[in-house]
Amino acid sequence: MRTLEFWFDFASTYSYVAAMRVEALCQREGVALAWKPFLLGPIFTQQLGIKDSPFNSQPARAKYMWRDLERVSAKYALPFLKPAVFPQRSILAARVVCAAEGQPWLGDYVRGVYTREFGEGHDIGQPDVIKSVLLALDVDAAQWLAAAESDANKLKLRALTEEAGQRGIFGAPNMFIGGEHFFGQDRLDDALAWR
Amino acid sequence: MRTLEFWFDFASTYSYVAAMRVEALCQREGVALAWKPFLLGPIFTQQLGIKDSPFNSQPARAKYMWRDLERVSAKYALPFLKPAVFPQRSILAARVVCAAEGQPWLGDYVRGVYTREFGEGHDIGQPDVIKSVLLALDVDAAQWLAAAESDANKLKLRALTEEAGQRGIFGAPNMFIGGEHFFGQDRLDDALAWR
Repeated sequence: MRTLEFWFDFASTYSYVAAMRVEALCQREGVALAWKPFLLGPIFTQQLGIKDSPFNSQPARAKYMWRDLERVSAKYALPFLKPAVFPQRSILAARVVCAAEGQPWLGDYVRGVYTREFGEGHDIGQPDVIKSVLLALDVDAAQWLAAAESDANKLKLRALTEEAGQRGIFGAPNMFIGGEHFFGQDRLDDALAWR
Repeated sequence: MRTLEFWFDFASTYSYVAAMRVEALCQREGVALAWKPFLLGPIFTQQLGIKDSPFNSQPARAKYMWRDLERVSAKYALPFLKPAVFPQRSILAARVVCAAEGQPWLGDYVRGVYTREFGEGHDIGQPDVIKSVLLALDVDAAQWLAAAESDANKLKLRALTEEAGQRGIFGAPNMFIGGEHFFGQDRLDDALAWR
């Protein structure tokens, strides 16, 4: 069985669109899915020397991106509401993914967080928002939040972020399959078709 | 009849893929095509404060782009050979498009220049390369090169570049149709489907 590694940051706008679609597409194609959270912040700092989203320093690109995201969301029948805060602090949301690796509800959690952020305009940097996603999944929210904040789990996310840089990642989302790297939500279908 | 404006720079890698496909797709969809050449250099200088391609200051992004361009070219059965020089000086190639607006051979000229550059690895900054494209079209190369270098025609390209900035362009290629702006070769089909 082929495996698609999906490398994403909850702060990334275009990762929203791909993250909402990737699990169903993998199931349809008979491809295993590995969720790989990482943080774009250290990548941008290392590669671009900036401490913010590149969109925030390029008003023309940002203006286009928000309109495009609205259009692409409509294309795939995904809810869209531009959040007031961008980029959002995604570290806790990502740590929960690290802690919950292999859990059957992980895909629902990822889509729940993204829907709160870009579908409903909430701030996922607020721990209560992450907690509300876990509660909606009927899992022990307090247990998973504690597991997310353990030292070993924090190191796991840091190691994934370092690996992302080593793998040639410079943005999000990314799909790795069959030794190939695909960047951007618009390459998801190409990635799944890759042989 | 709807019109698709195709805003491109001959120096832009992903514009190659879209430029090779756009005329045939427009004909199939019954959409008029307006070729709109402009220069990315002044846009990057104004928006990013750089004098080079953004790819050249981000090695990870550049490495990915060249591999992706090879893959996308194969997907559309386009020849691909990475040129030794990047980005190339595209001003003369673009001025010929300005001078030849409305000529029936314009699409063949655009595809001829791009094929020399990204299909065969030649340097389109060399006037002889542009001349060879014109000669292959069986048009008066000397006449069109002279028309390209007229003061009025130089101002035409400059005005298009200024308009590009005013229209919110920050890269290439771009498609404008029905009041919507689409950026990137991977949005060509979405642009043509837009209603």
